[in-house]
Amino acid sequence: MENTEASNALTGNLLVAQSGGPTVVINSSVAGVITEAGKHGEIEEIYGGLNGIYGILNEELIDINEEKAKTIEELKHTPAAALGTCRYKINFKNDHEQAARDMDRLFQVFEAHNIRFFFYAGGNDSQDTSHKIHEEAVKRGYAMRVIGVPKTIDNDLPHTDHCPGYGSVVKYNATTVMEVGADVGSMATDDGSCCIIEVMGRAAGWIAAGTVAAKRDDDDPPHIILLPEIRLDEEAFLKKVQETVDRLNYCIVVTGEGVKNAAGEEIGADKSRLDAFGHAVLSGAADALKEMVQGKLNLKTRTVKLGYAQRAAAHYASATDVEEAFACGVAAVKAALEGKSGQMVKLVRLNNEPYQWGTALQPLEDIANVEHLIPRAWISVDGFMPNDNFVKYITPLIQGENPVPTENGLPKFAKLVKEKVEKQLPLRD
Amino acid sequence: MENTEASNALTGNLLVAQSGGPTVVINSSVAGVITEAGKHGEIEEIYGGLNGIYGILNEELIDINEEKAKTIEELKHTPAAALGTCRYKINFKNDHEQAARDMDRLFQVFEAHNIRFFFYAGGNDSQDTSHKIHEEAVKRGYAMRVIGVPKTIDNDLPHTDHCPGYGSVVKYNATTVMEVGADVGSMATDDGSCCIIEVMGRAAGWIAAGTVAAKRDDDDPPHIILLPEIRLDEEAFLKKVQETVDRLNYCIVVTGEGVKNAAGEEIGADKSRLDAFGHAVLSGAADALKEMVQGKLNLKTRTVKLGYAQRAAAHYASATDVEEAFACGVAAVKAALEGKSGQMVKLVRLNNEPYQWGTALQPLEDIANVEHLIPRAWISVDGFMPNDNFVKYITPLIQGENPVPTENGLPKFAKLVKEKVEKQLPLRD
Repeated sequence: MENTEASNALTGNLLVAQSGGPTVVINSSVAGVITEAGKHGEIEEIYGGLNGIYGILNEELIDINEEKAKTIEELKHTPAAALGTCRYKINFKNDHEQAARDMDRLFQVFEAHNIRFFFYAGGNDSQDTSHKIHEEAVKRGYAMRVIGVPKTIDNDLPHTDHCPGYGSVVKYNATTVMEVGADVGSMATDDGSCCIIEVMGRAAGWIAAGTVAAKRDDDDPPHIILLPEIRLDEEAFLKKVQETVDRLNYCIVVTGEGVKNAAGEEIGADKSRLDAFGHAVLSGAADALKEMVQGKLNLKTRTVKLGYAQRAAAHYASATDVEEAFACGVAAVKAALEGKSGQMVKLVRLNNEPYQWGTALQPLEDIANVEHLIPRAWISVDGFMPNDNFVKYITPLIQGENPVPTENGLPKFAKLVKEKVEKQLPLRD
Repeated sequence: MENTEASNALTGNLLVAQSGGPTVVINSSVAGVITEAGKHGEIEEIYGGLNGIYGILNEELIDINEEKAKTIEELKHTPAAALGTCRYKINFKNDHEQAARDMDRLFQVFEAHNIRFFFYAGGNDSQDTSHKIHEEAVKRGYAMRVIGVPKTIDNDLPHTDHCPGYGSVVKYNATTVMEVGADVGSMATDDGSCCIIEVMGRAAGWIAAGTVAAKRDDDDPPHIILLPEIRLDEEAFLKKVQETVDRLNYCIVVTGEGVKNAAGEEIGADKSRLDAFGHAVLSGAADALKEMVQGKLNLKTRTVKLGYAQRAAAHYASATDVEEAFACGVAAVKAALEGKSGQMVKLVRLNNEPYQWGTALQPLEDIANVEHLIPRAWISVDGFMPNDNFVKYITPLIQGENPVPTENGLPKFAKLVKEKVEKQLPLRD
């Protein structure tokens, strides 16, 4: 059933939707889909699904042809999910009946609106959803091409060299580390000081590791990067903080939100709460480390927790990332028109210096629910810093700026008019 | 003794130094001092004091003439304190003997290096230090012109329309609120969500209030701004969060770090720790509010704590702010050469639309240790939002961008070579 190469002769409507946590460039991918789709007569109407699967189940579609071309262009510098997003997951694992009802409903919506091309931009969970939809279409004999568009700041999708959204979060975070480092390093103190910057990434350290790009000299911040891939050796960590302060009078630590202690427990997890996918809500790695550093070293310690700011910082996006995200949308449409389905677009690194890249396809079944972590060989022996292998990997991904037009001194982002497509179905049960 | 207008005929060396928490534009002020000083023959050598008073007491001066002109130009987009800064305060209040020793030492340094022009960029405490130095110079009959250069993101200096550093932190924070608001608002959830963004400003709400600039429509974030000037009415606050979530399905709250409860206690204060000036270290307003919102409303709540990132975000500085900061440095030198001493440069708003501004002088004795808060008439009746008076005030201050050159995808900041001036004195006791 996988990798189905359907007949090329398919015409009908297109539906594009977004899923999961937004990135700075997920709208650029949607712009790529829309722009490419507009060039092909086989695609009749271009619809956007509001709030991903969540809205599609409620038959909430908008007519993209009612949007101005200028607005679509502006999507390339607009953060968040312009179509709306969700964390709704069709519960195949634990509630088969509800999952079956959801699938029925989805295909009622697809049929009612003659959706023949479906593009879903998202991370692991969303690629899983796309995969299931593809399988279901094959099972039902409903001719529809389903292509996943990669998206996640966490950079933890397998098979793709990297994920759209990742380069921008690294560019912003590394810049923040440079700026905060300059600030903390410029303050003369008798006893030294420490600043702990907490970044996202869940169980993957890609985002934290990316801030190594801020280092132009050995003594530049960040001085320590704590990765979830390496269990925290508290004693070695504190020793390294103290050594850094002894040498430079300050220490900048970057920590991934999902860093684990020696016992393998997330040091910042609030175990009392789970998100919609059953993952623990992480919130306190920096605060836990601050307590440790202040308590054990008696060192003045501040924290920075960028939170959602890092994945929404369109004002300092990577131009490379924006371009690649757009290209993923374009490639998705081209693949579908070539008859492909059940595939995810992936980014391929063709050459490192000069950086050359392209897109290719990978079966969705290879992507879903697989978590890609940093190879151990890309991390220093002591575990506190990504090494040159990683630096070579990250450097091309943060190149170029993507200036945002301003209005009255602040960014001007795209606003879709969101003209609703008339509903054809009774309300969902 | 105040407002001494000394004879104009003074020649000798210039010393410029920075003090207190850095801003994005404090280096622009130093660039203004240096650039203007270079035009006047009365000023023989231009020295920088490393780490403010702290370094000057140790006779740590650098020779600015050894820096490239290009580096001085780059200071206009370089965050933190390029000369180094400190929170060292001459302890006039509680340790007269140490204060007297410090003053003796300072004047030994001034005399040893023939310092006749002294410029100190800083906030309230630093202006107080400048004032004391000016008074001491008069008392000792040591001919030296002392001019304070205003600097503080907190915007709490009296007499000046606003403080260099303030416009940039507002521009960055308001942009962050727009971006985070777009992110949170684009996520469809069954029960709604809340995000609390904590910003700096201590007892003054200027920084928090400034994020009102992000609102272009009534429903735009931020939906609630909590100011330290208004004691928190917990019930009214929670009601407003719930109303906002009922209407929009999300709520963005901006809180000043120094927000106080009904009893007048800072809700985020860690009372166990004090900084060098005896102020409580504030750290937890957002976390305290999150606990309140999640506990009472059962609403999923995330926090963002920008911390030092906001005062160091040179990559998104306000061009107006950079220009004004530079002009304050220029004005300081001009004032000193006109024979003024014991004054601080202030910014004067000449017209609002179109925005016109200039610089003037205010006696340092009027500035020191006076805290300027937001007028009640600039805040909505319910206390949760600055009103149009405030919007008119803030709008001109965030205009224009100040692009930072990049190197390998990340900002390239100035690095001073810091050629030390040969010490003339024995080590400090």
